[in-house]
Amino acid sequence: MPERIYLDHAATTPLDPRVLEAMLPCLAEGWGNPSSVYAEARDARLRLAAARRLVAELLGASPAEIVFTSGGSESDNLAVRGIAHGARGAGDHIVTAATEHHAVLHAAAALERDGFRVTYLPVGAAGFVDATALEDAIGPETTLVSIMLANNETGTIQRVADLADLVRAKNSRTAFHTDAVQAAGMLELDARRLGVDALSLAAHKFYGPKGVGVLYVRAGTPVEAQITGGLQEKERRAGTENIAGAVGLATALRLAVEELPARVEHAAALRDRLLEEVPRRVRRSVVTGPLDPDRRLANNASFCIEGVEAEMLLMQLDLAGIAASSGSACTSGSLEPSHVLTAMGIAPELARGSLRLTVGKDSSAAQVEALLELLPGLIERQRATARATST
Amino acid sequence: MPERIYLDHAATTPLDPRVLEAMLPCLAEGWGNPSSVYAEARDARLRLAAARRLVAELLGASPAEIVFTSGGSESDNLAVRGIAHGARGAGDHIVTAATEHHAVLHAAAALERDGFRVTYLPVGAAGFVDATALEDAIGPETTLVSIMLANNETGTIQRVADLADLVRAKNSRTAFHTDAVQAAGMLELDARRLGVDALSLAAHKFYGPKGVGVLYVRAGTPVEAQITGGLQEKERRAGTENIAGAVGLATALRLAVEELPARVEHAAALRDRLLEEVPRRVRRSVVTGPLDPDRRLANNASFCIEGVEAEMLLMQLDLAGIAASSGSACTSGSLEPSHVLTAMGIAPELARGSLRLTVGKDSSAAQVEALLELLPGLIERQRATARATST
Repeated sequence: MPERIYLDHAATTPLDPRVLEAMLPCLAEGWGNPSSVYAEARDARLRLAAARRLVAELLGASPAEIVFTSGGSESDNLAVRGIAHGARGAGDHIVTAATEHHAVLHAAAALERDGFRVTYLPVGAAGFVDATALEDAIGPETTLVSIMLANNETGTIQRVADLADLVRAKNSRTAFHTDAVQAAGMLELDARRLGVDALSLAAHKFYGPKGVGVLYVRAGTPVEAQITGGLQEKERRAGTENIAGAVGLATALRLAVEELPARVEHAAALRDRLLEEVPRRVRRSVVTGPLDPDRRLANNASFCIEGVEAEMLLMQLDLAGIAASSGSACTSGSLEPSHVLTAMGIAPELARGSLRLTVGKDSSAAQVEALLELLPGLIERQRATARATST
Repeated sequence: MPERIYLDHAATTPLDPRVLEAMLPCLAEGWGNPSSVYAEARDARLRLAAARRLVAELLGASPAEIVFTSGGSESDNLAVRGIAHGARGAGDHIVTAATEHHAVLHAAAALERDGFRVTYLPVGAAGFVDATALEDAIGPETTLVSIMLANNETGTIQRVADLADLVRAKNSRTAFHTDAVQAAGMLELDARRLGVDALSLAAHKFYGPKGVGVLYVRAGTPVEAQITGGLQEKERRAGTENIAGAVGLATALRLAVEELPARVEHAAALRDRLLEEVPRRVRRSVVTGPLDPDRRLANNASFCIEGVEAEMLLMQLDLAGIAASSGSACTSGSLEPSHVLTAMGIAPELARGSLRLTVGKDSSAAQVEALLELLPGLIERQRATARATST
């Protein structure tokens, strides 16, 4: 079998062998229940505390501000529903953007069913939230704003620090959550510097294990637990702690921070080649998301291609050994065009031809060239077939 | 260091090396996102589907009835809140027992805040729910009953199959959930034979990994997702799937079922020795939970000891190399006496002296004898110290 070319690092990443190595002792030995009182429990508790300290340090936070969860969706849900309900006495209005991940949007929809008011901010053609629209949306009843750091489909990087400042200036009691799931490993994630009150991460997006995430919650921001029962995670998240997962996440985050400049430089070179060459070689194709390389994730190259059905194209790429995506993996199987692309004003017919190529730390220039060689022919063949069957 | 004696298998169990071996290929290779469309995703999807099929088969269920979660607390929450909300149109009354795990009780309390009515059934001195009280509680508005298969503190095994029959006879539309987290590995878990509509499991209670659980939900029982976002788990639980965790859980469950008779026989012999000898050797100590060996978990020996502070005793046992518990690990740190013991009519002062010894497949007779040798002296010394300081 020829070498596979994996260009869907936004969907998930392989587990870094160094992360697995850090997890193995927790799986084999550190298996005590951290809530108990004896040596086995203390051992587990120490491993968990060390992971928590490391994550806190890497995020510019304190350990008590770190809540371990089962992943990005749970973190987003906990932030949106947990903070909104935690602040219910102070107001019932939350603000988010039309291009958020469904884990945020569906949590917001649940709040609407619970009687909250939700403002969904529109975005511009490149996916940016308009600062004035955000400012106008904030009122005395606004308890939470949730705007993602970087979009999973188009790589659009919001100016979260500026937006958070602006929100605080308008209503100092409004909490600001950012879904940083897709940004992790590609952007600096200092919670204080970002000025956010809550920030979501999922380990498997930065070479960590699946089934574990983090929600940073700033001290003093009440968050109502969404999974209830035991007293774990300072009563913000019940359930026996996944120690190996927490250690894996912490290790993966440490590597992501240590290797950030190298990873970004490597990814950006490959991304720039894709952003330049795909529209040049593929007729009637356009880049989606920002054209300014500093305003989009270093590993994201996304496009819309006229007259192409994304699913068909992805299958053909797969047969040729290339893993790519049309957008969010979480909505694969859905026949609707992407809510992100349509919110950016892209026509549904064009959005159906979306292609997302996301490179990783082990992607190579040769892999990108192989994709660039192959892609135009596949697309022209699909277009020809479509023409033939429609006549 | 002398050999440690671990007698808290109800809190958690070590990861079986055979389970770890099954997980490793998923961690190292099967890391694709199962929601995507290419080969790496198909590989992950196949592993996940195989784990789901295996769990379904072992529970007498079909694969579509298996929802993978992050653990027992999430499974219990999803069952109680998810089914109650899923059936809201049909009624707003749920029934549970006073001795349930907090993951069920706190979910029920959340429902009360949402306007549901909740009946908390009392239990008898051995922890059994009274069938007549249950029958009387069921009305036309009752959409859910949640009664655990076996209690985590006292090992009390409810007659769930009989109770479920009785509920169905009274109201055929009432769903029956059982928290089988503590029963797994010690009791048969055939969902059809138990006659339940939902059943919760946590892998780490039967030598599987932490951070993964299962909720069985019978086909035709609507369950409202508690974690929302993507379309995973047939829209009953959003979030990228923890494939290694699911494979670990499935493997651990297979081993638990295959080795069930041997594990039960081994545990029961050790338990019976504890149940007989502790009250004989320790003055003013009583067994909590059922005296009938067939009505309590084969691995659970629990006691109340007069004039003893459990936390102090556990620390002394730990210093002597023995890991034991006073009850639920999830409420360690709480100063309240156990809600399970007080619901069974045990006075709070006596409940503060609770001791739970839970043996496992690797516990030995020699370990039990060592505990029996040590325990009476520790307790007498603590009592003497208490007398000296109080005079």
